[in-house]
Amino acid sequence: VITGGKREGSSPPDLVVVGSVALDDIHTPWEHRRSVLGGSATYAALAAAPFCRTGLVGVVGEDFPEEARVLLQERGVDTRGLESRPGRTFHWEGRYEANMEDRTTLCTELNVFADFQPELPPEYRDAPYVFLANIAPALQLQVLDQLPEASFVAADTMDLWIRTTADDLAAVLGRVDLLTLNESEARLLTGERSLRRAAARIRERGPGMVLVKKGESGSVLFAPDRILFIPAYPLEEVRDPTGAGDSFAGAMMGELASRRDRETEAVWRAAITGSSVASFAVEEFGAEYVGRLDREAIERRRAELLAMICV
Amino acid sequence: VITGGKREGSSPPDLVVVGSVALDDIHTPWEHRRSVLGGSATYAALAAAPFCRTGLVGVVGEDFPEEARVLLQERGVDTRGLESRPGRTFHWEGRYEANMEDRTTLCTELNVFADFQPELPPEYRDAPYVFLANIAPALQLQVLDQLPEASFVAADTMDLWIRTTADDLAAVLGRVDLLTLNESEARLLTGERSLRRAAARIRERGPGMVLVKKGESGSVLFAPDRILFIPAYPLEEVRDPTGAGDSFAGAMMGELASRRDRETEAVWRAAITGSSVASFAVEEFGAEYVGRLDREAIERRRAELLAMICV
Repeated sequence: VITGGKREGSSPPDLVVVGSVALDDIHTPWEHRRSVLGGSATYAALAAAPFCRTGLVGVVGEDFPEEARVLLQERGVDTRGLESRPGRTFHWEGRYEANMEDRTTLCTELNVFADFQPELPPEYRDAPYVFLANIAPALQLQVLDQLPEASFVAADTMDLWIRTTADDLAAVLGRVDLLTLNESEARLLTGERSLRRAAARIRERGPGMVLVKKGESGSVLFAPDRILFIPAYPLEEVRDPTGAGDSFAGAMMGELASRRDRETEAVWRAAITGSSVASFAVEEFGAEYVGRLDREAIERRRAELLAMICV
Repeated sequence: VITGGKREGSSPPDLVVVGSVALDDIHTPWEHRRSVLGGSATYAALAAAPFCRTGLVGVVGEDFPEEARVLLQERGVDTRGLESRPGRTFHWEGRYEANMEDRTTLCTELNVFADFQPELPPEYRDAPYVFLANIAPALQLQVLDQLPEASFVAADTMDLWIRTTADDLAAVLGRVDLLTLNESEARLLTGERSLRRAAARIRERGPGMVLVKKGESGSVLFAPDRILFIPAYPLEEVRDPTGAGDSFAGAMMGELASRRDRETEAVWRAAITGSSVASFAVEEFGAEYVGRLDREAIERRRAELLAMICV
């Protein structure tokens, strides 16, 4: 059992993150990279770890590079929940359009994820904050079942689950406090074109808060009592948008967990931190870059973002 | 000479607005309206008039409805610069896609605009604020030549002028303080995908400030010293996006002109007012609705917008 130098192995994580851990092939109109460290849980855990004790739940195959595991541990991510199994690591291959927002999945190989049955280390059981990163809703539910002390749960999802596993997703919605999804997914899930209406429909199905992600146009937090904007940092160059949303949510949940806060305003403030981390995430390929960001850089950009809205 | 009840006919306008005055046919996926009051200058002047003495420069034909002229005057718009000529009023017909952002121009009939040579009333000559709404850059320049006291000039443009009259547009850029344009136009004008880079390229060509409009995702003000976000009000329903940008710019320039301010922060604050007015503009077809908005409603929504960013 290795838990990373900075964290005590015996205390429960402040935040448990479950999702995919992957090796990605990424095509942009200008570059192509193979076997890049990726996966929703990888990005989210690496983004959260500077803020709180973060426990990762996922599975990797025999091809998962030792450096990646070391990176997670050096970052302080608790990897007791990261199972190693015979076979190959989950693999995703995608191509981004020239606008660097639309993308096409070229290939998805589930590999060791195909029959993953998450079983959480007993030490995770008391974790109060949970982020169910993008993964089959049935797996999100299985993880949630093992976290009886969860007091604030956020979940992400994607078009695939909206289309193919609507019932499981409905069960997830009924059990989470915050759903994050992008604008086209919000429309797909509800049939509403207006994001305000879409968020209202989603909130009726469970989550008190909905965070609608709009890529380079920032995001909008729909809470019971109010609507709050989170700007995206205007970059000179985006190299690889993969993992932006996961990094955003990871940092946001990490900050919230560290404060044990769940009020609307705290969620908004943490989302500004998430936006800062997401803006770094897209400047380079792969999750390593997120895993090496220091809090000072995150805080500087966060202050810049705040100065763009709070004059 | 009729100048509207609320304004003195003899004093120069605080703000001169030039652009198109039109009768539009508008198709949305759900509705179709004929002969709706439109035009960039119509929306902008009606949006500006509650804030300052607003002088309109444009041309209409014999078919221009008397009610529309009355509406402008009741709103306090100075219509001494609105010429009436034999022939038909400028006509635009367009169809919006289901996303209510992309649109196709089905028909443009210049009519009386074809040989319009704006000649400003002498009383307009000392106006300090100018908004060159969307119209051929050559006409924008002609109007600017007649406003020697202009101390703050904003201009809007569109893809057509970027593609067809690049030299005239370059001359406009060299003479304005603020350029407003949408994100695809910013990219077309500069060849830069990053809006931050695009704004920097545009600023090198003249305007100290660039406001990039992103429709329902709000807008971004790129100023010499900083970048500022302006959220868009999240609506339950958009009925007709026509005129949103013109209403935005008109209200923004109206508020700036009334304060005789041109500092970055004042422009941002005025842009929040612009965003408020634009959000009303898209709730109904045609410019009449903008012409009937009262300042209290505008101020209420403006306060709501501020509460969405300044927590």
